[in-house]
Amino acid sequence: MSELRADQRAVIGVLGGMGPAATADFYAKIVQATPAQRDQDHPRTLIWSDPSIPDRTGALIGSGPHPGPQLAAGARMLERSGAAVIAVPCNTAHAFLPEIRAAVQVPVLDMVLETRDRVLEMLAPGGRAGLLATHGTIRARLYEQAFAQRGEPLLAPSGEQQERVMEAIRQVKGDPESAAAAQTLCSAVADLAERGAGVVIAGCTEIPVALAGAVGLAVPVVDSTEVLAQAVVRWALSHSGREQDEETERWSA
Amino acid sequence: MSELRADQRAVIGVLGGMGPAATADFYAKIVQATPAQRDQDHPRTLIWSDPSIPDRTGALIGSGPHPGPQLAAGARMLERSGAAVIAVPCNTAHAFLPEIRAAVQVPVLDMVLETRDRVLEMLAPGGRAGLLATHGTIRARLYEQAFAQRGEPLLAPSGEQQERVMEAIRQVKGDPESAAAAQTLCSAVADLAERGAGVVIAGCTEIPVALAGAVGLAVPVVDSTEVLAQAVVRWALSHSGREQDEETERWSA
Repeated sequence: MSELRADQRAVIGVLGGMGPAATADFYAKIVQATPAQRDQDHPRTLIWSDPSIPDRTGALIGSGPHPGPQLAAGARMLERSGAAVIAVPCNTAHAFLPEIRAAVQVPVLDMVLETRDRVLEMLAPGGRAGLLATHGTIRARLYEQAFAQRGEPLLAPSGEQQERVMEAIRQVKGDPESAAAAQTLCSAVADLAERGAGVVIAGCTEIPVALAGAVGLAVPVVDSTEVLAQAVVRWALSHSGREQDEETERWSA
Repeated sequence: MSELRADQRAVIGVLGGMGPAATADFYAKIVQATPAQRDQDHPRTLIWSDPSIPDRTGALIGSGPHPGPQLAAGARMLERSGAAVIAVPCNTAHAFLPEIRAAVQVPVLDMVLETRDRVLEMLAPGGRAGLLATHGTIRARLYEQAFAQRGEPLLAPSGEQQERVMEAIRQVKGDPESAAAAQTLCSAVADLAERGAGVVIAGCTEIPVALAGAVGLAVPVVDSTEVLAQAVVRWALSHSGREQDEETERWSA
């Protein structure tokens, strides 16, 4: 993919912890997305997993503190410590993407747009996508607006089903292997498929954690965590990290 | 386990990337080791995954560059960025533990001693432990000396079997799901059991990656990655992170 030696490549920054199991899953997917035979083929990665960031959905539905300042502070720390690009493996946190981007000079990838583009490549002509996401992501219309920019509609669960999806997401945060959560999410995929979705977006990073190993899903599910991992690896393999190496020198001083 | 609120707790630092899949596995085990119902119950964690660190075994068998300075620089960066304790999820890197510890003020946990203590709790009276590890860990006598401190012997694979174990570890670095590696490691566990080992130490962090999901192992295998994850979570849940919060303030400035 690139002629850059691993130690010349850009350092990946991960602003995570939302939740922590999803960040562990994201880093595993970064490793999987990298063509490598030995440790030294992989990009260097700095992960700030800050589960103390205020709940994103809580803020977006008006009942909790604003996570923007803490997200911005984390992004600044990652940049200061050498990250050349930042990925935020939390869809709901993308409601605060302008605030994160304003805090740093380095690029911050957009998980929602990356995922939309992957879904549009997969959809048959005239097909529609369905969305599983938090109340916060739905309320902030992150995917709805991204699809509308391309003139594409988007199916979301009914109000009652959406309550169950949100409950399942909370269950995964308490127990990443919750069978009840996996079952709820499989049913929600089936419902969206019945209503005409040809592809369903796992638009919350807890969802692929819950669905790991699920079989017999009604339609293909696009894993937003995996899409973002692939995007940030592509970025790192094709960008030089010279400035970051100077940064590393500075640490050694 | 503690009365500290999550945002008052110490920040965990992880000096990883040796290999990257093992670091992903380590962070997943940190998350699993934490009693939590919601994101905000988990400790904040800063992970520096630097797969460009020179091969540890290469240095220890005299054929490669010394990884000490880069390990020390990574530890300093973690400390500067707010880590209050450092865990190094690579057994072989523990040959350079004195150099890492000399570089920072914060405690750096000792994976080898933590694992030895867990194994000694499990062994029946008169029982012996077996070791699966890299050539570097064997050559540096890390586990051998740790067990000798307690007057306990340790079984290691024969020369030929040790070659196969090292080859399997390299295979896992290229393909974390390598079936050949898993098979080699299962055989090596069986051989050690036949020679009298009551417990076998997975004393290289690639080994639990390869053995994830393995069934029918001849004797219990102690996962050094999991032992270190549990140790660092215990540390973080019982130590205040006040200084780190000041650090976080500094990032926001």
